[in-house]
Amino acid sequence: MTHNTVTAYRAAILDSLGDPAEIGLNNSIRYFEDGLMLVENGTITALGDATALLPNLPQGCEIKHYEDALIAPGFIDTHIHYPQTGMIASYGEQLLDWLENYTFPAEQQFADRQHADEVADIFVTELLRNGTTTALVFGTVHPESVDAFFARAEPQNLRMIAGKVMMDRNAPAALTDSPQSSYEESKALIERWHGKGRLHYAVTPRFAPTSSPEQLAMAGQLLQEYDGLYMHTHLSENKSEIEWVKALFPEQKGYLDVYDHHQLLGERSVFAHGVHLCDEECARLGETGSAIAFCPTSNLFLGSGLFNLPQAEQHNIKVGLGTDVGAGTSFSILQTLNEAYKVMQLQRVKLHPYKSFYLATLGGARALQLDDKIGNLEPGSEADFIVLDYKATPLLSYRMAQTKTIEERLFVMMTLGDDRMIKHTFAMGKSVYDRS
Amino acid sequence: MTHNTVTAYRAAILDSLGDPAEIGLNNSIRYFEDGLMLVENGTITALGDATALLPNLPQGCEIKHYEDALIAPGFIDTHIHYPQTGMIASYGEQLLDWLENYTFPAEQQFADRQHADEVADIFVTELLRNGTTTALVFGTVHPESVDAFFARAEPQNLRMIAGKVMMDRNAPAALTDSPQSSYEESKALIERWHGKGRLHYAVTPRFAPTSSPEQLAMAGQLLQEYDGLYMHTHLSENKSEIEWVKALFPEQKGYLDVYDHHQLLGERSVFAHGVHLCDEECARLGETGSAIAFCPTSNLFLGSGLFNLPQAEQHNIKVGLGTDVGAGTSFSILQTLNEAYKVMQLQRVKLHPYKSFYLATLGGARALQLDDKIGNLEPGSEADFIVLDYKATPLLSYRMAQTKTIEERLFVMMTLGDDRMIKHTFAMGKSVYDRS
Repeated sequence: MTHNTVTAYRAAILDSLGDPAEIGLNNSIRYFEDGLMLVENGTITALGDATALLPNLPQGCEIKHYEDALIAPGFIDTHIHYPQTGMIASYGEQLLDWLENYTFPAEQQFADRQHADEVADIFVTELLRNGTTTALVFGTVHPESVDAFFARAEPQNLRMIAGKVMMDRNAPAALTDSPQSSYEESKALIERWHGKGRLHYAVTPRFAPTSSPEQLAMAGQLLQEYDGLYMHTHLSENKSEIEWVKALFPEQKGYLDVYDHHQLLGERSVFAHGVHLCDEECARLGETGSAIAFCPTSNLFLGSGLFNLPQAEQHNIKVGLGTDVGAGTSFSILQTLNEAYKVMQLQRVKLHPYKSFYLATLGGARALQLDDKIGNLEPGSEADFIVLDYKATPLLSYRMAQTKTIEERLFVMMTLGDDRMIKHTFAMGKSVYDRS
Repeated sequence: MTHNTVTAYRAAILDSLGDPAEIGLNNSIRYFEDGLMLVENGTITALGDATALLPNLPQGCEIKHYEDALIAPGFIDTHIHYPQTGMIASYGEQLLDWLENYTFPAEQQFADRQHADEVADIFVTELLRNGTTTALVFGTVHPESVDAFFARAEPQNLRMIAGKVMMDRNAPAALTDSPQSSYEESKALIERWHGKGRLHYAVTPRFAPTSSPEQLAMAGQLLQEYDGLYMHTHLSENKSEIEWVKALFPEQKGYLDVYDHHQLLGERSVFAHGVHLCDEECARLGETGSAIAFCPTSNLFLGSGLFNLPQAEQHNIKVGLGTDVGAGTSFSILQTLNEAYKVMQLQRVKLHPYKSFYLATLGGARALQLDDKIGNLEPGSEADFIVLDYKATPLLSYRMAQTKTIEERLFVMMTLGDDRMIKHTFAMGKSVYDRS
C-alpha cells in the first residue's frame, strides 16, 4: 500500500471566514501574502504562512509555486441555466417576452440527448475556464438534459447541483410536462444521480406562472421524500411577472407565498433574483433559511431592477451570486462582481471587495448549505480552488503594480478581471482546467 | 517615381451610414457579407462586394483576406482621461469624493514628464489594443502631460484630440493654474500641436466647479482665437455636483448656462455625461450643435445615474460614446456598449445594435465634427479601421455559430466581446496593432 500523495501549493492565499455584515470586514478574510496550502487525497490538510509550514512538509511532498498569483476557493454560481449557453446575448426583451422569443425555442432542442451532451460539455468547460467549481444549474423539462449535465460533471468529480424543469402550463406544448410526469421523471433522476459522487439533485419548478398548484404540490412532496434535495426556482424578478403571479394565484398573499403555501421554502431552497420583495417576504425567507441568488448582469440585461442587498442582510437572508446565463451576460464571477458593485452604486450602497469575495465563495456555499465542504480553504474542506493570475492582461498587470493591499487587489480583480485571470482550476485536489 | 501601393482587405465589412433615429434602422448600416475595401496612400478608395471589385484590382495589389472576421471603422472614444489609466478600478466613492481621494493624487504625478511619457505609452497602446483609433482625451493641468500624449500619438499618425486641464480653484495647489497661466500654457500647446499631423487641441476646463468665471472667460477667448479647436469638459454627471455648481454660480440659470455664458457651447464642444439635464438644457445643446459623451460604465461605477438617450435624440443632440477611464471600467468600446444596453434596459428603452454601432463609430465622428474624415468606410475617408475576430474566445465562437444575421452578430460582439476581439488595428492604412 502506498501513501497518499501530499501536494503543497504556494502563492498568496485568500479565503473568507464569514459574512462581513456579521463579523466585520477585517475579521471576514484570512490572507497569507506568502501562503502554503497542503492537499492530500482531495482534502485541504493545512493552510498557513509558507515560512511556518515549509520546515515540516512530509517527505517527497511536491511544491507548486505560483508567482504573481492568488490562490482562492473556487467560485460558486448559485443560479445558471446550462441550456441557455447558446443563446447568451439575445437582443432586446424584458423577462416574459425573452422567455417566449428566445428561451423556449432554445430549450426545445434538449429533447435530443446528443445536443444536450454537446452543450453540457461546452457549458462545464466554460464554468471551469471561469474558475467556477460549483453551480446550481437549471436543465430543461427533458430528463435527458439533466442526464447529459451530470454525465459531463461526474468524471471530473465536480460538486454540482441540477434538476429537470417542472413546467406544466403557460409554455409551448413541447416543453410542458404534467404534475404526475414531472414527479416521476424527477424521482427517477433523483434515484440516478442524487448523492452520486459529489452530485446533488434540485427539484426545479421553473417559476410560479408555469406550474399549476398541483405541480407545485408535487414539488413539495418530492422534497419530503428524500434527504438533502435542493429546491431551485425564480422569484420576483420583474414587475409584470409579479402581477401575473398575483392574477394566477389570487388566493395567495403574493409571489413568495405561492411557494410557501406548497412547502417549498427551507434551508436548501434557492430563489433566483428576488429583486422586488417586501419586508414581510424577506422576513419569511430569512426565518425559513431560504437563499436568494443575486444575479446582477442578468438583472441589468433584462432591465429587471436593482437587488436590495442591505434589505436581505437586515432579514438574515442567505445570499449567493448567480451569473444567470443566458440572461446573464458572462460566465465570469469576476465580471458578475463588477456589475454587482454597479448595481449597489446606483443605490448609493458601497459593496466592499471583502463582501463581494464572500458572496462569490463562502456566501454561495452557505446559500447552498455546503459550507462544511466548500466555500473556503479551511483544513478539512474539499480542495476546490483556483489560481488567479495577477498579470493576465497588460492593463491588469499595470494596475496591479499600483496596489499595496489585498483589499485593493481584490477590487481590481473584480473590476478588470475575467476568464483570463483563471490560470488553474482544481476540484478535489485534481486539475480540471489549465489555461494554455 | 513609383506608384502608391494599393492594398485590398477582404472580409465581412460593416459600417454606419447615419443615425438610425434619423434615417431608420435598416438604412443606417452598409454591410457586405464578402466585402472588399481598397486602401491607397492611407485613404479608402473603394468599398463593395468582393465579387464585384476583385476583377478590376490594380496590378500587384496585395489582398489581405480575413476569415471569420469583420472589418469595421475604428472605434471613437469621445471622453477619456489618460492620466487616470493607473487608477482605473479604485473603490467606493461617488464623483466628488472620488476626485479628491483618487484622481487628484494620481494627477499630481504628471508634473514629471517621464511619468507622463510612461503612462501615455501604456494608454495609447491600450486604446489600439481595444480598436479605438480616435479619442478625445483629458490631460492634467501640466502642459507636459499633453506633450507626452501627443508625442506618443504622432509617430503612429493617429487622429487624436487632447488638451491640458484648466483648473484654478477647488483643487490641491499642486494641480491648479491661474486664468492667465492656463491661457498661456494652452496657447503654447495649441501652437505646438494643433493641426500637426492628425492631432487637434481641445480647450479643457475640468468642470465648472474648478474654474473661476475668469478662467472660463479665458477658455472662451482661446476658442475665438484659433480655428478648429475643441472644447472638452464635464456636465451634470452627479446631483451633488449640480448643486455645487448652482451654489458657485448663483447668477446663472443652471450648470449648462455657466458654460453658455462663457461662450463654450458650439459644434466642437463635447460635454461628458449630461446624465441629469432638463429639456431646456437639451434644447440649447441641440441648437448650438454641442455634443454629449455618453459614458455608461463610468455612470454606473460612480453611481451617477442613467443617461437619457431618447431625450438627447428628441433634441437632436450629437451623442458619442465615452469609456471615461479611470471612472469607466474598461477601455473596450464593446464592453462600453454592453453596459450602454443595460443602462437603457433599466429605462425600458431598447438600444438596437445598429444604434450602438453608430454611437461607437459615425456618431462619435459626428460628435467630434470629423465625419468627413473618419467614422465610416466611405471611399475618400481616412483608412482607420479594425478587424474583429469572431472566434476570439471559445464562448464567442460557439455563440457566433448560432447567429444568422449581422444584426445578431453585432449584438453578440457587443455583449461578449472585449479587447480579444480586436485582431488588427489600422490608422491611415498602416498597422498600428496586431494581436499576437
